[in-house]
Amino acid sequence: MNKLILDGKAVAQEIKSNLKKRVESLTEKGIVPCLATILVGDNPSSETYVRMKGNACEKIGIKSIRIQLPKDIQTEELIDAIQELNNDDAVHGILLQHPVPSHIDERKAFEAINLKKDVDGVTSAGYGQTALGFGEYPSCTPAAILNILKYYQITIEGKQAVVVGRSPILGKPVSALLLNENATVTTCHSKTANLPDILKQADIVVAAIGKPKFIQGDWLKDGCIVLDAGYNKGNIGDVDYESCYNVASAITPVPGGVGPVTIATLLKHTVDSAEKTLT
Amino acid sequence: MNKLILDGKAVAQEIKSNLKKRVESLTEKGIVPCLATILVGDNPSSETYVRMKGNACEKIGIKSIRIQLPKDIQTEELIDAIQELNNDDAVHGILLQHPVPSHIDERKAFEAINLKKDVDGVTSAGYGQTALGFGEYPSCTPAAILNILKYYQITIEGKQAVVVGRSPILGKPVSALLLNENATVTTCHSKTANLPDILKQADIVVAAIGKPKFIQGDWLKDGCIVLDAGYNKGNIGDVDYESCYNVASAITPVPGGVGPVTIATLLKHTVDSAEKTLT
Repeated sequence: MNKLILDGKAVAQEIKSNLKKRVESLTEKGIVPCLATILVGDNPSSETYVRMKGNACEKIGIKSIRIQLPKDIQTEELIDAIQELNNDDAVHGILLQHPVPSHIDERKAFEAINLKKDVDGVTSAGYGQTALGFGEYPSCTPAAILNILKYYQITIEGKQAVVVGRSPILGKPVSALLLNENATVTTCHSKTANLPDILKQADIVVAAIGKPKFIQGDWLKDGCIVLDAGYNKGNIGDVDYESCYNVASAITPVPGGVGPVTIATLLKHTVDSAEKTLT
Repeated sequence: MNKLILDGKAVAQEIKSNLKKRVESLTEKGIVPCLATILVGDNPSSETYVRMKGNACEKIGIKSIRIQLPKDIQTEELIDAIQELNNDDAVHGILLQHPVPSHIDERKAFEAINLKKDVDGVTSAGYGQTALGFGEYPSCTPAAILNILKYYQITIEGKQAVVVGRSPILGKPVSALLLNENATVTTCHSKTANLPDILKQADIVVAAIGKPKFIQGDWLKDGCIVLDAGYNKGNIGDVDYESCYNVASAITPVPGGVGPVTIATLLKHTVDSAEKTLT
C-alpha cells in the first residue's frame, strides 16, 4: 500500500507563503499585525509554545506581545488584562495560552476575548459561528487538521470520521469542521464504551485526547487516515505511531505534523484580523 | 420485550407543572412573561405552529404577541422588526418561525435576536454556549428530546447515539446535548454513505431529517430508543413508525411525542427569561 507521511511543515509553508507579502503591504499602510499572547504562570511546555509562536510571528513580520502574569493571579485580574488588549487598537489577535492554573475560571477568561480578536476560536460565539459554518477564526488546531486534509487532497465528503476527544478548542470544533465538510462524524471521549470497535469503522481518525500513544494500530481500519493532534511531554503524540503507521494509508508524525500547521494558521488568522481593520 | 411509548404529553405536563405558579408570581410583581412570535408569509403549517404556541402560552398566563409580516418583506425589514422586539422590555422571548421565504437571509435574521431573548437557541452564540455546556436556552426541540430521555430515566452516558440530520436548530444542537450527557454521538446527513449500517450500531436514534417515514425498522438495532423529531405534512414523522416500533424498546409517536415537549420547553424558557429581568 502507498504510505503517506502527512508533512505538516509543507502545509505550513503553503499557508505562510503569501503571509509575508500581506504583512508588508499592511505595514506600508501603517498597520503592523500584532498577536498578543497571555501566559499565566510558568508551565515549561506553555513557555515553549509561546516562544515558538513568538518566533514564528517575528519571521514573517508580525509583532508579538507577550503578557506574562503570575500564577497566583485571580480570574478578574486576568480578565482585566484581556480587556486592555481588547481595547488596544494595535492588537489584532489575543491568545490566552491553555491551560491556565486550576483556580482560574478559564472559560470566563476565554469569553472575555473580543470576538474580532479571537484568532484561536476559543469563545463560545466563535465556536458557534464555526459550527454553523460561517466562523472566521476556527480554533487553530482543528483548522490545521482540515488544512492538512485539503493540502493532500484527501476526500472528506461521505467519509466516516471519528474524533477522539471533545474539548472546546479541539475535539468539538474539529468534529464540527469535518461535519461541515460532509463527513459523517462520531465524537468519542472518556465515557465511550467501545472505542476500538468505533475506530474500526473510521476512514479518518483524529486523536485529540492528551494521552501519549493511546490509539493503537490494531484498533484501526486498514488504509485509514490518521491525524494526531496530541502533543505530550517528550514530543509524543496521542497515537502509537509505529503500530498505527503500519495500518494507516496516511498519518501525521509528531512532531512535524499538526503542530507547525497550527502555528501557521494562527499567523494567518492574525493577518486576516489586521486586514479587517483596513475596511 | 417491554415496549415503551414515550408519551410527550406526560413530559410536557411535568415541565409545565410549576410554570403557572411562576407566571402568577411574576405577574404579581408586575411582570407578565411575554413571547413574541414573528411569522413571515402565510405558510399554513407555520400558521398552525404559531397558533398552537399562542394557545399554549395563554393557558398558563404567558402573553403572546404575534407579528405577522408579508411574504415579500426584505431581510432588513425583518431585522428591524426583530430589533424593535429586542428593545421592548415587555418582551422576554423572540421566536422567528422557521422557515422564512427563501429570498430572506434567515441566518442573518436569527443572528439579530438578542441572546437574552433567544429562547429557541437559534443564534450562533446561543448554539455555541449550548455546545460548550453552559447555554441557557438550547433550541427547544433538542432540549425536548433530552427532557424525554430524562423523564423516562433512559441512560444516555456511554450509549451510542446516532442523530440523522444536521440543521442548526435540530441535528447539530441535539448532537451537542447528547455529547454533553456523555453519549458517543454520530451525526449523519444526506451525504452519509451507509446510513443503515451506522444506525445498526445505535442505542439511541434521533430522526431529524424532514423526510416522512424515512427511517426503516430493519435499519435499527433491536431494543434501541427512537426519538422522532420529524413533523411532516399530515402529522407524519421521519421514522416509519410501524416497522420501527417492532424493533425499538422505546419510541416517540408522532403526533404526541417530541412536539408537545418542544412547546412546553419554549414556555419554560420564556418564563426563565422573564424571571431574569427581576435580578
